[in-house]
Amino acid sequence: MNYFSSEFKLGILGGGQLGKMMLYETRKWDVWTKVLDASPEAPCKISCNQFVKGSLLDYDTVYEFGQGLDVLTIEIENVNLDALDQLEKDGLKVFPQPRALRIIQNKAKQKLFYVDHGIPTADFQRFAYLSEIEDSIQNGGLKFPFVWKAAQFGYDGQGVKVVRALSDLEGLPAGECIAETMIPFKNELAVIVARNDDGEIRTYPVVEMEFHPEANQVEYVICPARIDDKVASKARELALKVAQKIKLTGLLAVEMFQTEDDKILVNEVAPRPHNSGHYSIEASYTNQFEQHIRCILNLPLGATESKVAGIMVNLVGDEGHTGDVVYENINRILEMDGVTPHIYGKKQTRPFRKMGHVTIVDQNIDQARKTAQKVKETIKVISK
Amino acid sequence: MNYFSSEFKLGILGGGQLGKMMLYETRKWDVWTKVLDASPEAPCKISCNQFVKGSLLDYDTVYEFGQGLDVLTIEIENVNLDALDQLEKDGLKVFPQPRALRIIQNKAKQKLFYVDHGIPTADFQRFAYLSEIEDSIQNGGLKFPFVWKAAQFGYDGQGVKVVRALSDLEGLPAGECIAETMIPFKNELAVIVARNDDGEIRTYPVVEMEFHPEANQVEYVICPARIDDKVASKARELALKVAQKIKLTGLLAVEMFQTEDDKILVNEVAPRPHNSGHYSIEASYTNQFEQHIRCILNLPLGATESKVAGIMVNLVGDEGHTGDVVYENINRILEMDGVTPHIYGKKQTRPFRKMGHVTIVDQNIDQARKTAQKVKETIKVISK
Repeated sequence: MNYFSSEFKLGILGGGQLGKMMLYETRKWDVWTKVLDASPEAPCKISCNQFVKGSLLDYDTVYEFGQGLDVLTIEIENVNLDALDQLEKDGLKVFPQPRALRIIQNKAKQKLFYVDHGIPTADFQRFAYLSEIEDSIQNGGLKFPFVWKAAQFGYDGQGVKVVRALSDLEGLPAGECIAETMIPFKNELAVIVARNDDGEIRTYPVVEMEFHPEANQVEYVICPARIDDKVASKARELALKVAQKIKLTGLLAVEMFQTEDDKILVNEVAPRPHNSGHYSIEASYTNQFEQHIRCILNLPLGATESKVAGIMVNLVGDEGHTGDVVYENINRILEMDGVTPHIYGKKQTRPFRKMGHVTIVDQNIDQARKTAQKVKETIKVISK
Repeated sequence: MNYFSSEFKLGILGGGQLGKMMLYETRKWDVWTKVLDASPEAPCKISCNQFVKGSLLDYDTVYEFGQGLDVLTIEIENVNLDALDQLEKDGLKVFPQPRALRIIQNKAKQKLFYVDHGIPTADFQRFAYLSEIEDSIQNGGLKFPFVWKAAQFGYDGQGVKVVRALSDLEGLPAGECIAETMIPFKNELAVIVARNDDGEIRTYPVVEMEFHPEANQVEYVICPARIDDKVASKARELALKVAQKIKLTGLLAVEMFQTEDDKILVNEVAPRPHNSGHYSIEASYTNQFEQHIRCILNLPLGATESKVAGIMVNLVGDEGHTGDVVYENINRILEMDGVTPHIYGKKQTRPFRKMGHVTIVDQNIDQARKTAQKVKETIKVISK
């Protein structure tokens, strides 16, 4: 198959910011692309060769979208899997494979998969309905505090809540969920694993994540993680093991906890380019989006090492601002060396909405961390 | 002016490979763009917000294109300058300024500009017609060998020829030209200078260029140039001086000769992102395309230093191949660490046509040079 010709056709389900960054790479290699998204204002609408407006969750829309493609991939995992199954049966290359997406799309199934494959993860209980959690608490089967997670369709910190009292359950979705033991941890870590269709597999360095305490969104992603080498090796090996078990073609972002006693537990995985890998655009020899394209086109994988230390700051909407977005003081962060803002192109901001990110790179990680702090204190995502 | 909003409109004259790479940056910052190009298959046709098909040399087309824009820039300098003059008079920000383009667009004027401003350059004579060169030779005013250069519209090695005998003049365009003394040189060097509208100015490191002996096209661009620090400083200072005299808003690529006795002479300049700066996408803290956008939007300039050593190899059409392009062995270069191909998206190849480039980065410049050689020997741009 000659990927670098107009005869080859790549489809992408989802036209959001991840897809947008994927399209930088398809443009770089002149790979023909078609994108499906429900929003006529999707960031991917330009930069792809063909844009189709439609629901990612509708069987007919997805099935129809897949016709005539050579490879179909995703930039968001909440898509109609039955359509993907049928397309795969029809002979289309669907990467990551629907089989893997089915495990990952449902957090209860994902957790059971870890248990089945001897992958360390926090203890949990599965519930078909939210109401069953209340029963379990009253029976003494479940104790506060615990972490409630919706089994499906959680994204960007939605669908996750720490529950310390019955009242915390109020207003949560009624459907399938899990209750996870709260893990006291030193660090949240992540490793991106790339695997092409021939099974060549490579891991990126371990990154360290700092979360915003209220919004449960990543505030800083730091590469390399400032942890000792033994812990880093352990995390990288565990991520590799998860990827070898799930065996998907594409990227797998593995989020982990480093416990107080330096155990590594898998928190959750994402089967695609991931926020924890955005630093790679500026810092890595091969950025995660190019690597994803290499995986799904079954090309040789690129080097995952970093040229320089990289830190990513998410640009999220300030509290108390809803409306047409303004990036206040963006000029002042552009004055700082090694600072690159990425603006996703969403026209409207609202509290905690992901509007972009900023990468800070430097030969020296401590300097990068200082600059990242300055960036964070300087730029504000507000409304007009 | 809020550049990072859909109210701001940037126009680009030319939709070729330089424009295409510029559009990665406008997408990254969600800057609204409109592109003018004569070809309906221009690489920029996707990734811009609006594409207009039309001639860059036609007054009415360019003038009309400029209406409603906030800033207008170029990715090729052969555009209708009278239209740009009028647009500037109307109040549009045209960067680089038509005044500067007028100096640069005509090589005779460019050379006179150097003379007028005490900028060292090879001796030359100006001729209104090619036939005057023959007269001058017969009069003894001009001696072989010399370098003939068309005054206008030379690009990618066209419009330049070494003349060693009268017969070498056969078939050359009849119009205005210059005859330049051949300079025996050790190295061809280049420095990109960035200047924003406030006058903030920064130079990139000196790069070293190796040319293909037949096609007169750059074969390798090596950053940093492997020359001694004194020569590098001299080249960087000279490039800065040229930029300070021309005083354009945007990038100025300054090509220079390092003579046998370590003098630096200016060869020619280009008022835009340049082939000699492509390495910056992978190697620099701020790549030349982002820097160009910073200049013309009057944003603070980014750091020009490199993260790692970078070498660029041009991908040009192999001799003896004309037709639908195939990038033979591209998979084999993807196996090499730190190697990034860029495919411009031209469907047809022909001998020496610029079809793309490959960047090789490495902490060690000697290793990068070895890999670059391997890349060059491996990938072939052929036809089906």
